[in-house]
Amino acid sequence: MKEIELQYRKLGNLVKANAKSDDVIELIMKIHKNCLDFISDYQRTDLISKIQGKNYFVFKSNGKQSRAVNSELFVQNYEFAESVVNSIIKNDFKKTNPEEITKALYSIAISFCSSIDLLKRGDQKTPGTYFEYFVTHWFAKMLQINPRKQVDVLNLDMSTSLPTDCIFDLGTNRPKIHLPVKTSTRERVIQVWAHQRVLDGVYGTGRFLGFLVCLSETKVDHVRMEVVEICLPDQWRLYQMFIAQMKRIYYLDVPTRYLTLNEIFPPIHVRPFGEFFYEIGGLVEGRETKL
Amino acid sequence: MKEIELQYRKLGNLVKANAKSDDVIELIMKIHKNCLDFISDYQRTDLISKIQGKNYFVFKSNGKQSRAVNSELFVQNYEFAESVVNSIIKNDFKKTNPEEITKALYSIAISFCSSIDLLKRGDQKTPGTYFEYFVTHWFAKMLQINPRKQVDVLNLDMSTSLPTDCIFDLGTNRPKIHLPVKTSTRERVIQVWAHQRVLDGVYGTGRFLGFLVCLSETKVDHVRMEVVEICLPDQWRLYQMFIAQMKRIYYLDVPTRYLTLNEIFPPIHVRPFGEFFYEIGGLVEGRETKL
Repeated sequence: MKEIELQYRKLGNLVKANAKSDDVIELIMKIHKNCLDFISDYQRTDLISKIQGKNYFVFKSNGKQSRAVNSELFVQNYEFAESVVNSIIKNDFKKTNPEEITKALYSIAISFCSSIDLLKRGDQKTPGTYFEYFVTHWFAKMLQINPRKQVDVLNLDMSTSLPTDCIFDLGTNRPKIHLPVKTSTRERVIQVWAHQRVLDGVYGTGRFLGFLVCLSETKVDHVRMEVVEICLPDQWRLYQMFIAQMKRIYYLDVPTRYLTLNEIFPPIHVRPFGEFFYEIGGLVEGRETKL
Repeated sequence: MKEIELQYRKLGNLVKANAKSDDVIELIMKIHKNCLDFISDYQRTDLISKIQGKNYFVFKSNGKQSRAVNSELFVQNYEFAESVVNSIIKNDFKKTNPEEITKALYSIAISFCSSIDLLKRGDQKTPGTYFEYFVTHWFAKMLQINPRKQVDVLNLDMSTSLPTDCIFDLGTNRPKIHLPVKTSTRERVIQVWAHQRVLDGVYGTGRFLGFLVCLSETKVDHVRMEVVEICLPDQWRLYQMFIAQMKRIYYLDVPTRYLTLNEIFPPIHVRPFGEFFYEIGGLVEGRETKL
């Protein structure tokens, strides 16, 4: 499947040139079609799920295995994803809903990541970078602005630039967006809050809204064929209390244990990514739109 | 060299049981002797140094190469390290000095890391863990107390434990020590300041003194045979201003560009690790002992 890799490289160039362009999602959909073709040659093998209420499988063949795929979220049907994506492109959000969007975008992302798992064992970088392109496109599309990868720091006698995750500058008197993207977080997630803290310190608290977008937190034991979710909710609470405040944490496959963080102190709003499309307009205007 | 690996595993058990014990340094010295023997079979090949005022070589044989070794700091002589270490064990700090200690401890650490580079290509974990044992021992020895790996958080209605780097609890009304240890830092170093910030937030600013100890920041291009230092001084300044304050940053092979941070705002005290032995007593009593 040389084609997927070539398309992936082309995607990188497109995103760097103009992340908000519809060319980006058109290419992503071509890649998605190729990935669905590719994984259709593999068998689904159910995993023993240690995660309450969620079922997972892997794509498997000749000793090769993909990452865990959520059985309820994954729709192995190109037309479904295409129809949902078309509604988003046309800004026709009444034709679809957060659940459908989450499923469609999950299916697009996980089919690529699984294909790379099967094509290039041990390659974590390609899925991670692809997922960053994918999420960056949706933010750029919805905000109608392209991102930057660093911000200038002018701080009395200090002048430097701070390399960051994606930054979206909505212009004077509007908030700016700080967008870290990770396929999964594990122990490195403290970086996300720390970067937010630096932005708060340099530019003023609240000037940057922090949005973390993740794919999932599953971990597979490929010998026992078991899947678990790695979650550290108490540590997130400490980070949210003592380092900085993230505005939203979106997942395509939300870990159940993180959902409970919505209900307790400090508030950490963890949501399925589909909800982003319905609330981002309000959030950048300072309105908390509860769905 | 099965023996080095066996001794390394034994070292882990010793450090976990009683990090401050002299058994630890005795075993480290046995390992050091074995590593010196092992690397004596390899040729030194000079690297093209892109670092002003510093020269480096690698140990090389049959296409295998070690990491960069600082020619001025590395003393390939067991008796030198033994004599310096004996002065430390006997608390006889007048018999040696910070420069000698830095050289001796650099030689001990880099001979092990280089041996592992040559024995197990791509193994980053073993050198990292060994270096953690090594530095933990010196802190435990000098503070005369063993470390912990997590601290309890009791925060109104929240009760959890925070997994951390090494923590040394000197008892009531004395500061506690937060000790992250890294062979090199790169972009992950923001974690160190973020952990310090959480400790400041949970326990009160200044309650924990943060000491980061690193081996070096060299990076080798093994094809071009060039060595560079990866330094991000402006980012460190932002972290020190906006996340938390680290008390000291010690290096066995101090990057020159970080040394300049001692001279500008915000103060970041970056020092050769040898100085630790002469100032730690004062620092925990709240005295800034300038050497």
